Amino acid sequence: MTATYVYPFSEGSKDQKDLLGGKGANLAEMTRLGLPVPPGFTITTDACRWYMSHGENPPELADQVAAALADVEERLGRRFGDPEDPLLVSVRSGAKVSMPGMMETVLNVGLNDETVQGLAARSGSERFAQDSYRRLLQMFGRTVEEIDGERFEEVMDRVKAQRGVASDVDLTAEDLAGVVAAFQQIILEETGEPFPQDPREQLRRSIRAVFDSWNAPRAVVYRNTERIRHDLGTAVNVCSMVFGNLDDRSATGVCFTRDPATGQLGVYGDFLVNAQGEDVVAGIRNTRSLPELEQVLPECYAQLTGIMDTLEAHYKDLCDIEFTIESGTLWMLQTRVGKRTAAAAFRIATTLVDEGVIDEEEALRRVDGGQLSRLMFPHFAEGSGAEPITTGLNASPGAAVGQVAFDSASVAARARDGIATILVRRETNPDDLAGMLAAAGVLTSRGGKTSHAAVVARGLGKTCVCGAETLEVDEKAREIRMGGEVIAREGDVISIDGTSGEVYLGEVPVEPSEVVQYLEGDLAPDDPAASDLVRSVHRLMGVADSLRTLEVRANADTAEDAARARRMGAQGIGLARTEHMFLGERRVLVENLILSADQEQRQEALDELAEVQRGDFVGLLEAMGSLPTTIRLLDPPLHEFLPDITELSVKVAKREAAGKKKSKRDVTLLGAVRRLHEQNPMLGLRGVRLGLTIPGLYGMQTRAILEAEAQVRRAGGDPHIEIMVPLVSSIRELWEITAEIRAVRDDVAAEQGMDLACRIGTMIELPRAALRADEIAEVAEFFSFGTNDLTQTTWGFSRDDVEAGFFFTYKDRGILLTSPFESLDQYGVGELVRIGAQRGRSTRPDLTLGVCGEHGGDPDSIHFFHHVGLDYVSCSPFRVPVARFEAGRAKLLEDSFELHH
Amino acid sequence: MTATYVYPFSEGSKDQKDLLGGKGANLAEMTRLGLPVPPGFTITTDACRWYMSHGENPPELADQVAAALADVEERLGRRFGDPEDPLLVSVRSGAKVSMPGMMETVLNVGLNDETVQGLAARSGSERFAQDSYRRLLQMFGRTVEEIDGERFEEVMDRVKAQRGVASDVDLTAEDLAGVVAAFQQIILEETGEPFPQDPREQLRRSIRAVFDSWNAPRAVVYRNTERIRHDLGTAVNVCSMVFGNLDDRSATGVCFTRDPATGQLGVYGDFLVNAQGEDVVAGIRNTRSLPELEQVLPECYAQLTGIMDTLEAHYKDLCDIEFTIESGTLWMLQTRVGKRTAAAAFRIATTLVDEGVIDEEEALRRVDGGQLSRLMFPHFAEGSGAEPITTGLNASPGAAVGQVAFDSASVAARARDGIATILVRRETNPDDLAGMLAAAGVLTSRGGKTSHAAVVARGLGKTCVCGAETLEVDEKAREIRMGGEVIAREGDVISIDGTSGEVYLGEVPVEPSEVVQYLEGDLAPDDPAASDLVRSVHRLMGVADSLRTLEVRANADTAEDAARARRMGAQGIGLARTEHMFLGERRVLVENLILSADQEQRQEALDELAEVQRGDFVGLLEAMGSLPTTIRLLDPPLHEFLPDITELSVKVAKREAAGKKKSKRDVTLLGAVRRLHEQNPMLGLRGVRLGLTIPGLYGMQTRAILEAEAQVRRAGGDPHIEIMVPLVSSIRELWEITAEIRAVRDDVAAEQGMDLACRIGTMIELPRAALRADEIAEVAEFFSFGTNDLTQTTWGFSRDDVEAGFFFTYKDRGILLTSPFESLDQYGVGELVRIGAQRGRSTRPDLTLGVCGEHGGDPDSIHFFHHVGLDYVSCSPFRVPVARFEAGRAKLLEDSFELHH
Repeated sequence: MTATYVYPFSEGSKDQKDLLGGKGANLAEMTRLGLPVPPGFTITTDACRWYMSHGENPPELADQVAAALADVEERLGRRFGDPEDPLLVSVRSGAKVSMPGMMETVLNVGLNDETVQGLAARSGSERFAQDSYRRLLQMFGRTVEEIDGERFEEVMDRVKAQRGVASDVDLTAEDLAGVVAAFQQIILEETGEPFPQDPREQLRRSIRAVFDSWNAPRAVVYRNTERIRHDLGTAVNVCSMVFGNLDDRSATGVCFTRDPATGQLGVYGDFLVNAQGEDVVAGIRNTRSLPELEQVLPECYAQLTGIMDTLEAHYKDLCDIEFTIESGTLWMLQTRVGKRTAAAAFRIATTLVDEGVIDEEEALRRVDGGQLSRLMFPHFAEGSGAEPITTGLNASPGAAVGQVAFDSASVAARARDGIATILVRRETNPDDLAGMLAAAGVLTSRGGKTSHAAVVARGLGKTCVCGAETLEVDEKAREIRMGGEVIAREGDVISIDGTSGEVYLGEVPVEPSEVVQYLEGDLAPDDPAASDLVRSVHRLMGVADSLRTLEVRANADTAEDAARARRMGAQGIGLARTEHMFLGERRVLVENLILSADQEQRQEALDELAEVQRGDFVGLLEAMGSLPTTIRLLDPPLHEFLPDITELSVKVAKREAAGKKKSKRDVTLLGAVRRLHEQNPMLGLRGVRLGLTIPGLYGMQTRAILEAEAQVRRAGGDPHIEIMVPLVSSIRELWEITAEIRAVRDDVAAEQGMDLACRIGTMIELPRAALRADEIAEVAEFFSFGTNDLTQTTWGFSRDDVEAGFFFTYKDRGILLTSPFESLDQYGVGELVRIGAQRGRSTRPDLTLGVCGEHGGDPDSIHFFHHVGLDYVSCSPFRVPVARFEAGRAKLLEDSFELHH
Repeated sequence: MTATYVYPFSEGSKDQKDLLGGKGANLAEMTRLGLPVPPGFTITTDACRWYMSHGENPPELADQVAAALADVEERLGRRFGDPEDPLLVSVRSGAKVSMPGMMETVLNVGLNDETVQGLAARSGSERFAQDSYRRLLQMFGRTVEEIDGERFEEVMDRVKAQRGVASDVDLTAEDLAGVVAAFQQIILEETGEPFPQDPREQLRRSIRAVFDSWNAPRAVVYRNTERIRHDLGTAVNVCSMVFGNLDDRSATGVCFTRDPATGQLGVYGDFLVNAQGEDVVAGIRNTRSLPELEQVLPECYAQLTGIMDTLEAHYKDLCDIEFTIESGTLWMLQTRVGKRTAAAAFRIATTLVDEGVIDEEEALRRVDGGQLSRLMFPHFAEGSGAEPITTGLNASPGAAVGQVAFDSASVAARARDGIATILVRRETNPDDLAGMLAAAGVLTSRGGKTSHAAVVARGLGKTCVCGAETLEVDEKAREIRMGGEVIAREGDVISIDGTSGEVYLGEVPVEPSEVVQYLEGDLAPDDPAASDLVRSVHRLMGVADSLRTLEVRANADTAEDAARARRMGAQGIGLARTEHMFLGERRVLVENLILSADQEQRQEALDELAEVQRGDFVGLLEAMGSLPTTIRLLDPPLHEFLPDITELSVKVAKREAAGKKKSKRDVTLLGAVRRLHEQNPMLGLRGVRLGLTIPGLYGMQTRAILEAEAQVRRAGGDPHIEIMVPLVSSIRELWEITAEIRAVRDDVAAEQGMDLACRIGTMIELPRAALRADEIAEVAEFFSFGTNDLTQTTWGFSRDDVEAGFFFTYKDRGILLTSPFESLDQYGVGELVRIGAQRGRSTRPDLTLGVCGEHGGDPDSIHFFHHVGLDYVSCSPFRVPVARFEAGRAKLLEDSFELHH
């Protein structure tokens, strides 16, 4: 059987985007609907993939293209290369996912020294024909022959100068014929061969150039930024040419079937008479509003609005459309479901529901948690009147205001005084990490969306504008200049908008997100002050909540966080870390435990620690009512509570070298720090290993938790506690520690005279735990997948060291499209989650399964967790609404779930 | 269907050790052979496991025991509890694996105040009957009622003192009747209840006590040391009593069917007339040599030698036997395949082949790589006349001589002067690790075989004697005393034998292993100077080599190591690390690379590094001839080649504090050290990540390797190089780096004008690489499982931090029976190896699969690697013979392979 690599527009449909690309699939759909699409055909992404892996076209391709072209000739009654009435075609890329401006187009393929005359005769315009030929040569030269575009521009500039005219349109047919000759000469010089006069050779090479453009550096970088897979390949659309610049009954334009901001039906768009599509986009001439077309070409206008209705009815969504009118005949060149802002997406979806066009489930399909999260960032107040001084790249969203600081030390100094800062650098490198962490936002003058600043800021959730190239950042002089003039010095206040990329001098007032006000319960959806957007979010959130089977809990360590999480809709706490209870002033308690010389001192230290924790637990349990509250026993290595070994060593050595008396506490501490120092603390004495090697530690925590439960219960509460053991890798660890926890539970229950029925479970955060989950589930009553640590061990890299280190290079080279810490690596780490879930349930069918890594709040990851059948996800309180939303969508979309990363 | 928990001796066989334990299975086998075994029955390990998990006996057990007992009564014509002629039974534990002295026995069950009179009447000896009753009370009190044995001893001592006699045997029947009364009183006082007069109650409680003894602390510790699984449980043997101390026609003894040292057939053993088994073992009375029995009881002697022949013919191996003669009737109480030393095992196996008793394959089954490796340690010369001053525990084998050093600093100081040391400590802790590493051997006065010293020394392969309790180690006075007298001071020379546990003052000459001399080719097996042992090893190694399908390569970094590995039989190099090429004086070259300020300096540094490496590679390739040589590109993080951050920070700070001028190089270096510092270097910038982020590094190494190949090839050599990329976790990493390596290969091939066809493959040492092996094998031509790193990431612990840290506690508590770094964790890490192998071969059926972690030299692990179908194992040159040997055994035993750890 021969593979089919070419589909005439009359054969495909909009559901074949994988094979035909977005553009090709929609051209086919419009053709199928009987709309006036210029005949043409699409070469499939399969053909591109074949080309990429073999370095040459599939052998069947040439014949299939020839046959498809013959079919176009037949339909139009024109022949490709006919000197009298030549068929011309455009050759355009069209990938599955839109990559605007990233790939290549060659127009007017089919023109040569002969056919240009035929085109002149048929169109009645020698100038038009020469201009078309010149455009072909220019695009072919640049795209196919990879000649520097400057060489062609120079010729145009020279000819215009010679002719004393300012604009291309003022050149005559004769001028343009000269340009054509000059362009042919450039191609000959640069390639050693003349421009191919054979139209089929032009077509062949143009197709190959489109294939090649898939792997052009800018396309690769774009895909890296947008997390698009590199192995998709592009389709190629070969379409017969129509001309909007043939005469005054010709025009070209773009339009939307609805208001792209609100979704209200209507006629929205722009057009130009006697112009080409690129003129509309380029903004050289002032476009006219679409309704005016009714006056200019009433029949075409009527036909177009009819087509808009057809497309709306068919796609049941906002469509955007490119059209061309050639001498009074309307042609549809492209349509697609229109892009929109996050807010518009919500508004449009609910508008369509209100109109009865789609149902609520379909509306939920059309928005996503990523859009919801974009609505949750604070933003600069509208109407502040502030004018941006420049616009850079919107690298990481949010709005940030602060004093300019040029390095980490300066950020830190201001941070100590409680002053917010914007770290401003030419570009950042790993040494700037501390500053990036402490600053309110980051601004750079160089680097794109995959620059170090952009990658790290997104990872940190920090507002960032990068590549604001008009700014000269002088780190030595500690000033920012623009056009040579100093606009800000260190300490001056600036404001940056990471959502738009805009940069302002001075302070622009920041407004909280209205959506967050609603989600936090501070703004009721039926409040007259609430916008359409809030009502739309409320409505679709309701749909998501009613659909979803995945519960959403929150990671919260304090009563305040817990309360916030409940307001955000959390159905429990999936992870309460206990380590924060040992930070700050309480560090000294941990030091006492570590430095305790005998059993008595140790017990004293443990008792003090138990005392402070009990209070914390009471607060947490009170905040959570009767919702499940999962408390994790101490996880980090103890030396994290002690001073840094290098800093303390230097401190002691300096005093010694300077002949000063050493502090006895420092010397004792240094001994402990040295004893506890580990080469790889991530892989060291932490988690359950602490519980098993430090007598009484986990018992003390268990006691504090259960005494808190007793206290809350006595006051009328009804806590549901789940005690979670971290970092288990084998059944025997859990067996031993569970026995200890149960013994303490029995003791406390007896002392308190009440039943304390906490559940005992474990984190699954090491590959071995996932592989041995069947055994482990014999003891554990629940699992919580710790996908942060599981990612670190499965990949063998430490997040701390890696995110500021080689990740940058890896993303830049496209080795990683997205950080596996941001979105679950479904193929690797995900397989261990799947194995762990299956094996765990194989020995304990009613095992509760959750996830408490940061992936619990990531949309793609949530779909995966739904797919593998977890019971809940747990994420930071702020991500809870996104998780609820995506959990609903995951249920809705479960049949079409596919693994990806 | 009712479960069967009780097997009469007449029903089992020797192949049922899992169910009946070793002792029970062999009693059954002897019964089946028609040998005179006292009737009895075995309660299965199933019953014990049921008891352990339910806390009570299986419900069927009581009835089944009653029925089996009735059967014994029938066979013997005596009744249990019959006051006239009582049946007495012994109740003994018997696990699958022998645990000598670890578990419990109760003899003479069935005696009470009534039946003791019947026994006296039947035996004609009131004294014998009272002594038997006294023994029952004593054993029952200690074992079943857990009364301190001292209480019973005190009574015996008091009675002997009152009677003015020295020995138990001098007590009269009347004395013993008093003892019986006193013992009954003790039991009443300690338990609040009288000694049970009901024989069935005695039996029931004794059986339960044996079950309980399985989890007694000393049994748990023993199993931890010997790596025996804790969930096996023990069987219980209930056997009718026979008495070797009834009269002068009674006797008891032990014997071997062959000389246990050499395997020569003959009559070997000892006996005592009118005595009990424990008298033989206790050594209180001088035993007589077995042939003398012919004079004493000629009929029994003839019967016994006949039985020995029967057992030999049946077991086809050296058997050891316990027998008792009761009034001229011979009874067999136990037999088993006799324990033997490593050397004896080899000698016996070949002797049996020579005699035609077994074939060569069976001989290979009967020895193992562990025994072979014990024969490879150096040992103290025989006949040196040295007398040990004491004997401790043989914690880690080998012979070591050196100056006494009491702490790590002292070891280090002597090591700098090239002086060998023995680190002597009361006990060791993690702080002593540096000293243990640098010392020739370790001696402690406290701690057992699972003490820190023992565990760490075995891990390091360091000679160690621990728990030499007669020594007083005074670390402050820096001297060792014995009985208060100083026997050695710091700096004095001592010698320790880790194989026997013996400690000597002064230097004892150390002899290399004769087996190693043979294996290294320095001693031919047919050399008249070669011992039987060498010939035996040679013969069985030949069998192993002819059987095995697993190849054996070596891990070797230098030409010297490579040459040694080939002498030891390595069939290639499975891992040549390149990092050693950057150590020592060459560190400065790496520093230059790191500190290079521009492209030119960087290239200069790379060129220098290439130059020195090329020479190293030439040596390696020359040593390996045409055998495959797998070279791993640089793996460790670069900061490993720089000074330690804390040390350098302190150095710089001290100079500063003291007002001295700072070294410019130090300051620059400190900057680099800080920049490269990682929280978790194990999970940081290393392996392929270095290759992808440091431009030119892997290219430089590839160039050095291939230029070396060209040089060796030009000189007539035929190297087979495999370039190995470390720490790959995703296909794209390998894809990118393979492209770079191929490009360099093409360049060098063109420059050198020859074909350089190295293969390119990867380590599989991260969980993700194993899971994605199908993808990775699309690029990799071979896999080498790096089980060290794979263990670290699968378990989430770092070897460096862990082996001296919580491992000790983990082993002590039985959480880990063996270090997963010593022997592969077949259930966890092993599953990833299996997955990696299967998936790799699924996309590349001819993929070469090997392993180069240290597990490549571990017997159990080798069987696993054979089982999952690897092509080769690679291990240190010294382990190559063990690996060859076990690879042969793995093939032989493949049908009975079972996962374990």
